[in-house]
Amino acid sequence: MSALDQWVTQMRAGDRRALARLLTIVERGGPNAAAVLAATHQYTGRAYVIGITGPPGAGKSTTVDRLAALYRAAGKEVGILAVDPTSPFTGGAFLGDRIRMQDHYLDKGVFIRSMATRGGTGGLPRMVKASLRVLDASNKDIIIVETVGVGQTEVDVMRVVDSVVVVLVPEAGDAIQTQKAGLLEIADIFAVNKADRPGAGRLITELEAMLNLADTMPWWRPPTLELQASNNVGVDKLYGLIEEHHAALESSGNLAKKRQERQRQEFFSTLEEEAGTLLKRLADRQGSLATVLSRVESGKEDPFVAAMQVINNGAFLREWLATIEQPADSP
Amino acid sequence: MSALDQWVTQMRAGDRRALARLLTIVERGGPNAAAVLAATHQYTGRAYVIGITGPPGAGKSTTVDRLAALYRAAGKEVGILAVDPTSPFTGGAFLGDRIRMQDHYLDKGVFIRSMATRGGTGGLPRMVKASLRVLDASNKDIIIVETVGVGQTEVDVMRVVDSVVVVLVPEAGDAIQTQKAGLLEIADIFAVNKADRPGAGRLITELEAMLNLADTMPWWRPPTLELQASNNVGVDKLYGLIEEHHAALESSGNLAKKRQERQRQEFFSTLEEEAGTLLKRLADRQGSLATVLSRVESGKEDPFVAAMQVINNGAFLREWLATIEQPADSP
Repeated sequence: MSALDQWVTQMRAGDRRALARLLTIVERGGPNAAAVLAATHQYTGRAYVIGITGPPGAGKSTTVDRLAALYRAAGKEVGILAVDPTSPFTGGAFLGDRIRMQDHYLDKGVFIRSMATRGGTGGLPRMVKASLRVLDASNKDIIIVETVGVGQTEVDVMRVVDSVVVVLVPEAGDAIQTQKAGLLEIADIFAVNKADRPGAGRLITELEAMLNLADTMPWWRPPTLELQASNNVGVDKLYGLIEEHHAALESSGNLAKKRQERQRQEFFSTLEEEAGTLLKRLADRQGSLATVLSRVESGKEDPFVAAMQVINNGAFLREWLATIEQPADSP
Repeated sequence: MSALDQWVTQMRAGDRRALARLLTIVERGGPNAAAVLAATHQYTGRAYVIGITGPPGAGKSTTVDRLAALYRAAGKEVGILAVDPTSPFTGGAFLGDRIRMQDHYLDKGVFIRSMATRGGTGGLPRMVKASLRVLDASNKDIIIVETVGVGQTEVDVMRVVDSVVVVLVPEAGDAIQTQKAGLLEIADIFAVNKADRPGAGRLITELEAMLNLADTMPWWRPPTLELQASNNVGVDKLYGLIEEHHAALESSGNLAKKRQERQRQEFFSTLEEEAGTLLKRLADRQGSLATVLSRVESGKEDPFVAAMQVINNGAFLREWLATIEQPADSP
């Protein structure tokens, strides 16, 4: 039995250190990540994934904690993935981790993982997707993904979950208003948290008006609800709405469709990224790509024009093939 | 003389309709965009590009207007590119367009262009880069790029300009505080606008403290300044700081280095995207890629693992080569 198979066996038996180790490997990407994902693939497909997003200060962590407690009470194993796409300077995810630990660290049925990274382009959603599969393979019934902020990276992360809950607060203000349209496209449920503050009713009315104008699915129209997560008011209703959405996804055939589309997208985005990496490596050697690159860097050719010419020309493909067929260059 | 060459000649002679038409073509991408960029490449490299970013409501449009007026007074031709990466539902960029028009529509020395798009992944920064080159070729001395919001897309857009001005307001609040670290990485100048409101001095002090801890370049430490753009207070100082940053970039050799690195990055990102498009087209035909894809979609194989195997295997490259070498498939 290989070391990897041993870790997988230990992880499946509930060993949290083995799970943490395998998550670290998949976060780093590359051939080792592929080996872990290949070894765990047969155990995936069971977990249901819930995403919680919204602006900073909306009470997302508290909402996640309360939801996790309800799922634990229902006998479910829970994984929590806290994703912070902002710069490591803020340290937000790690702080959140420690605060949450106070509630759950004694409970073996909850596994919490933080993921912070420099706001790169595309790397984080890939890390999240891979980590979700490992958590799934570790027998979690429910995985809750929480993001900080409401930017494009968060939207990309939310595209990989089954149910998206958008948490807002009454005083969210202009900054949020301009983002609402983007949120509308991803939200399955809108929760207005801290609903004891003034303006909660008005925000609900606004959201409902917006939803009335929007093209929603025939099988699901995103509901809105008032929440006071820190007072534990409305969390059971939120739990019920998530379960309803899960049921609607299944009965309409959209859960299977969504997951299949997600597999397809990840396949192509990985291909694209890896092709990019290979092309950079090819350009470092002597050859047609290196020649074009030096013309681009010296300003003799437009970069977009040059790239379009390269891609429609067989020369670099033949060089690429040659590197694959030399055993010294194989991974 | 081809129609394209005629439009380029007209654009170079100051025809605003020809410029607008060429911008529309490059925004759409593809082979036509490449043709426009190839035809205008020889006229590029003169314009200096300033980026203005910050949260909604910070007064960015007013700041852009005032700056544009100062550059006009100095005899410069100005292009303004207003970029709104949020959903088209908001219509923010177009509204901003009309408001700004009131000040400048009679001035032939200012050309204003709005660009709004669904928050896609990477498409917008590419459109901005191509549009900047066309504006550059149309004899603009100064191009000002303005974004809405402070998300990852805005950060990506700001990476393609020469000087980045981050505009904040005293009451920016928590939502902005958490983003400050990300802004720190891209800002060349911090402007605290609406500085007659309480808290401006405190925000300047906070920013200075943050800058003291940060690793800044030996040749440029981002300055902070108070601004009241709508009262025209401090805009001349901002103008002076931008000119200082421009001079520091040139004398340190970093302007040329930055622009070269940008050409390189655009070359590779275009290659990567185009390779992705080609791979999708290949998977639609019968062949090794289509076989792997169907295994991924049916859940038999992990998408990341499958993609890594494909990329390290020559079979799909040979299929790709075959499509290029069939004249029927050439563009």
